[in-house]
Amino acid sequence: MRIAVDAMGGDNAPQAIVEGVLLAAKEFNDLEFVLFGDETKIRSAIGTQTIDEKKIRIVHTDEKINSDDEPVKAIRRKKQASMVLAAQAVKDKEADALFSAGNTGALLTAGLLIIGRIKGIDRPALMPILPVIGKKDQQFLLMDAGANADCKPENVYQFGLLGSYYAKFVQGIEKPRVALLNNGSEASKGNDLSKKAHALLAQDGELNFIGNIEAREILTGDADVVVTDGFTGNAVLKTIEGTSLALLKLIKSQIMTGNLKTKLGGLLLKDAMTDIKDVMDYSKHGGAVLFGLQAPVVKTHGSADKVAVYYTVKQIRRIIDSHVIDDLVAHFNALNQKKQAEME
Amino acid sequence: MRIAVDAMGGDNAPQAIVEGVLLAAKEFNDLEFVLFGDETKIRSAIGTQTIDEKKIRIVHTDEKINSDDEPVKAIRRKKQASMVLAAQAVKDKEADALFSAGNTGALLTAGLLIIGRIKGIDRPALMPILPVIGKKDQQFLLMDAGANADCKPENVYQFGLLGSYYAKFVQGIEKPRVALLNNGSEASKGNDLSKKAHALLAQDGELNFIGNIEAREILTGDADVVVTDGFTGNAVLKTIEGTSLALLKLIKSQIMTGNLKTKLGGLLLKDAMTDIKDVMDYSKHGGAVLFGLQAPVVKTHGSADKVAVYYTVKQIRRIIDSHVIDDLVAHFNALNQKKQAEME
Repeated sequence: MRIAVDAMGGDNAPQAIVEGVLLAAKEFNDLEFVLFGDETKIRSAIGTQTIDEKKIRIVHTDEKINSDDEPVKAIRRKKQASMVLAAQAVKDKEADALFSAGNTGALLTAGLLIIGRIKGIDRPALMPILPVIGKKDQQFLLMDAGANADCKPENVYQFGLLGSYYAKFVQGIEKPRVALLNNGSEASKGNDLSKKAHALLAQDGELNFIGNIEAREILTGDADVVVTDGFTGNAVLKTIEGTSLALLKLIKSQIMTGNLKTKLGGLLLKDAMTDIKDVMDYSKHGGAVLFGLQAPVVKTHGSADKVAVYYTVKQIRRIIDSHVIDDLVAHFNALNQKKQAEME
Repeated sequence: MRIAVDAMGGDNAPQAIVEGVLLAAKEFNDLEFVLFGDETKIRSAIGTQTIDEKKIRIVHTDEKINSDDEPVKAIRRKKQASMVLAAQAVKDKEADALFSAGNTGALLTAGLLIIGRIKGIDRPALMPILPVIGKKDQQFLLMDAGANADCKPENVYQFGLLGSYYAKFVQGIEKPRVALLNNGSEASKGNDLSKKAHALLAQDGELNFIGNIEAREILTGDADVVVTDGFTGNAVLKTIEGTSLALLKLIKSQIMTGNLKTKLGGLLLKDAMTDIKDVMDYSKHGGAVLFGLQAPVVKTHGSADKVAVYYTVKQIRRIIDSHVIDDLVAHFNALNQKKQAEME
């Protein structure tokens, strides 16, 4: 399995990217990497570690995409950018997956324009893997978390299908519970989009569609896959992040400004609080997958450190190993043939 | 000032409602109440307390709307329900405002069908008052939080106007900062609705429109009024609730299942944690206002206790006292006259 790595994307690139890759390379013998980026900087990040140059190749380029670059323009004009070259390597079948911690919009664009969609999927979705709070090792998928601000009911339905495939093949959940994010639990609830998406999800007998889920319930693990349009999904994802951060900050400030008793309590609770931060730190649950493309494209946080990079590489390995994309391609080919047969 | 109270709405009705009203009546000499509901139960909730029957009147009715009643049907058919009678009293100018802890959908319907909209406002919005985390006594308004699942750009623009009036006249903020919830900070970001709403908000010179805000930032107090459609607003509100609850529960369980050191730490931190729960308990910040109607209609949580009821009554008093609705009516009348003059 070979992963094309945009070594220059993210706040801590290339240092954190290279270190995370080396961690993963040490653990998994079946992984190969092509690192795209400034060779001098990459070599300096490798430092004195010895690497197997057959398994970790470096492709030098001076150009890179910045976090504030306008996505479509950047992908079209910066033909030699590390991210673009990495995407091209995947397109040319020189690598099985693309990894980046860089500009999310640009990565979405590179995925769409260079790697391309699976035939039959209209809109690939950004799919982060989020922790279920209070149940260690349980996770849920939220999609679309921001790739498609405007969605049609068919898109949301396809997200359910995509998520279900991922949960089944990559996460090993036999009958993934798919739920539609909505403003009430009854089937009649929602806006125009969610009502129509509900009807489409409900009529697919192969999906384990469990109906509507309210945003209040998603973190407690009632569903394995939560689908919605990319605008709402983005708002929900960022609200989870913002609320968690604000609450943890508030607790910290209560302890720092409290009396001696409170401060002592804070000191004694330090380990437990670190555990809590770990639960919320969803970089450890893997990156967000841009799912629905002809190869896995996985994005980790711009602020990812080597540990987050390591976990994301581990996740990519699992995705490639599962052959989920082959299964999706087969599903849509069969669907297409069925449609054509019906038309003839 | 007279408040029409649906004494039978909410999980703890009429006990918590009556107790909260009595608390407020004791403090504010200028408040009168009409309690609609089962007189025997209301009298039993009053118990041995002596009340001024001129200031606290009881209007008996057997009927009430349940939390699982279908809103529109319930309002249309249960003509003698406590909520319907209370709304009718406001419509007939026998009371200045309506208070309920009952079925939210039914209250929205009662507000729209019985009390009626302010002329010029197409869609009243549900507007909860939320705490800014880490800044005591600072709050922000989120609207629409669920009254209108499908919105047009004009609706979202009007929410900005409504929220701005409330923040100015009721909360005393001179130039309320109005922000549009969006999936990025640049003006070009968003879905079709938010892009068009952005344009409308930006062209109103009287509004202090500060541009887009991401959901990650709303709890930190960067805006006084955050506007969005009712579907997204509902999802964001419920995500804040769900994330807070899940995190506090996780902290509690870490403490309960932890070692002796952790347990002792938890014990010492008990006061500080109660403070944190208080910050997140937004019932103390007042109820959610269904804003844009000819009179204030205020909803508190179904699970509200007497303290939450007391705070909500206090908030209603401030709304009536501010004459914000008169100002809104005047604004839209002037706007209307201007439009007519332009057409002639």
